[in-house]
Amino acid sequence: MNIDFHQRLASVASEIEDVLVTIFDVATDPPVPARLLNAMRYAALGGGKRLRPFLVVETANLLNGDSGAALRAGAAIEFVHVYSLAHDDLPAMDDDDLRRGKPTLHLAFDEATAILAGDTLQTLAFETLSDPATSTDPAMRAELVLLLARAAGGAGMAGGQMLDLEAEGRFSAEVELNAHAIRQLQAMKTGAILSCAVEMGATIGRANAQQYQALLSYGRALGAAFQIADDILDVESSSAELGKATGKDAGRGKGTLVGLWGLGKAKAELARLVDEAVHALALFGEEADILRAAAHFTAERRS
Amino acid sequence: MNIDFHQRLASVASEIEDVLVTIFDVATDPPVPARLLNAMRYAALGGGKRLRPFLVVETANLLNGDSGAALRAGAAIEFVHVYSLAHDDLPAMDDDDLRRGKPTLHLAFDEATAILAGDTLQTLAFETLSDPATSTDPAMRAELVLLLARAAGGAGMAGGQMLDLEAEGRFSAEVELNAHAIRQLQAMKTGAILSCAVEMGATIGRANAQQYQALLSYGRALGAAFQIADDILDVESSSAELGKATGKDAGRGKGTLVGLWGLGKAKAELARLVDEAVHALALFGEEADILRAAAHFTAERRS
Repeated sequence: MNIDFHQRLASVASEIEDVLVTIFDVATDPPVPARLLNAMRYAALGGGKRLRPFLVVETANLLNGDSGAALRAGAAIEFVHVYSLAHDDLPAMDDDDLRRGKPTLHLAFDEATAILAGDTLQTLAFETLSDPATSTDPAMRAELVLLLARAAGGAGMAGGQMLDLEAEGRFSAEVELNAHAIRQLQAMKTGAILSCAVEMGATIGRANAQQYQALLSYGRALGAAFQIADDILDVESSSAELGKATGKDAGRGKGTLVGLWGLGKAKAELARLVDEAVHALALFGEEADILRAAAHFTAERRS
Repeated sequence: MNIDFHQRLASVASEIEDVLVTIFDVATDPPVPARLLNAMRYAALGGGKRLRPFLVVETANLLNGDSGAALRAGAAIEFVHVYSLAHDDLPAMDDDDLRRGKPTLHLAFDEATAILAGDTLQTLAFETLSDPATSTDPAMRAELVLLLARAAGGAGMAGGQMLDLEAEGRFSAEVELNAHAIRQLQAMKTGAILSCAVEMGATIGRANAQQYQALLSYGRALGAAFQIADDILDVESSSAELGKATGKDAGRGKGTLVGLWGLGKAKAELARLVDEAVHALALFGEEADILRAAAHFTAERRS
């Protein structure tokens, strides 16, 4: 199963890359200014595991949903992910130098271009979803836009980033978060978009209520597992392995479950969440093995 | 007609303010972090003429379109406008201190919050449009999202801002733009969103092809007129009158038609464009007088 999973992950990543390239090519007519488009390409192409698109594609596939719609929805969620990385890396935010093994966008270009390219990648996500090329069904297009907007907005990803800045004491004294507050922050900052990927796939696959609820539980457990795994990697891995800065959460006093509990208890909680994600898929047969493998991968990845 | 117009502009602005407040109130459930929500409110509430929402509402009204849908679409386009102002004002962009007569968002809060609040206002625009509360017709919701995304993105507003930064010599030597290039830049930077406002109203009013084309011509002429009027105000008005910095375009060598042609020829072109906008509405009767008045107002406003 594991070998199949890595092959499939790479295969979907390759398909997504093609879709991203195609969308950028279309963006030259009418013309997006070259510098802006180059910055968007730099941020979006040739990097990342494409885990969020993978979840859209494989969830839709489980339900025999339209694979073309899933790929375009996967591209849209990747645009949002990449825009958030570009803005989070800005000097005024986390001030990072390295992303996906390359200089961050504002170093490769400049701050103004990085702000604008991030803004435009977000816009492009919603343009992609609302375009009839994604689905001939306008109700599906509108639903995908709503799912992504809710996950990316103030009660989701962007709100989580704000809580993260507050937790590190950016605006007042550093805040000591308890486990509940850390979970809430992480459910917003990274969980919402990962869970949204599964929900988009479920929507494209026209899941019934029972299937939707099961997939939502899966997505939420996987999202929580992903962030704990990320925090463990931040402690245990080198910057070279991750292709981004490490050790910075501890250094800045950011609230993580690893920091609060130590590695042992955090790893036990991670295992529990993977188990929860796997069991949420009980109503599906072995055709859901790829999603079960994704839950294991989320916990066991080394980068 | 002019007195009616100003009353109507104020009346729509008041209705839009109510819709914005309601949308922000809903954003507290599930909770958007208080600091983020406060920054979004600061940027969006209590200021501006609300010209873009006015154009959505009055165009929809001309065609007897759903006024509730028009108000929510107007709120969405205002969110995009306000996000772009917040990001344009950032130190890395135009580095402005004053906006709508108040300190700019990054001064009232801080840069990180201003970036995040801008990001979230953009997301909220698409969430607002795709929400069933805007229209029970999902095809209309999807179409409104697509219109706004195209107008706001790399081939529209954000692309125009990039061209503007390039024109002021930010990335290389200052670029001398000819009239064609200035028109292109301005059609993207400010024209696309103003024109989009009219198109959204036409979509909500289910305009037929002939009506749509006429309104599109109106919107484009009005958008071009708006920018020339803005450039004239930048030269002729004080910062106190405008509630934002003035004289900066000339100081930075930005390409404007006023700079290229001088005030006399620019004012003649402005009058021509207002005339063009008014005549584009020939197929409508006096019920389009309010849009004709909007074209005159665009040219004659003092702030």
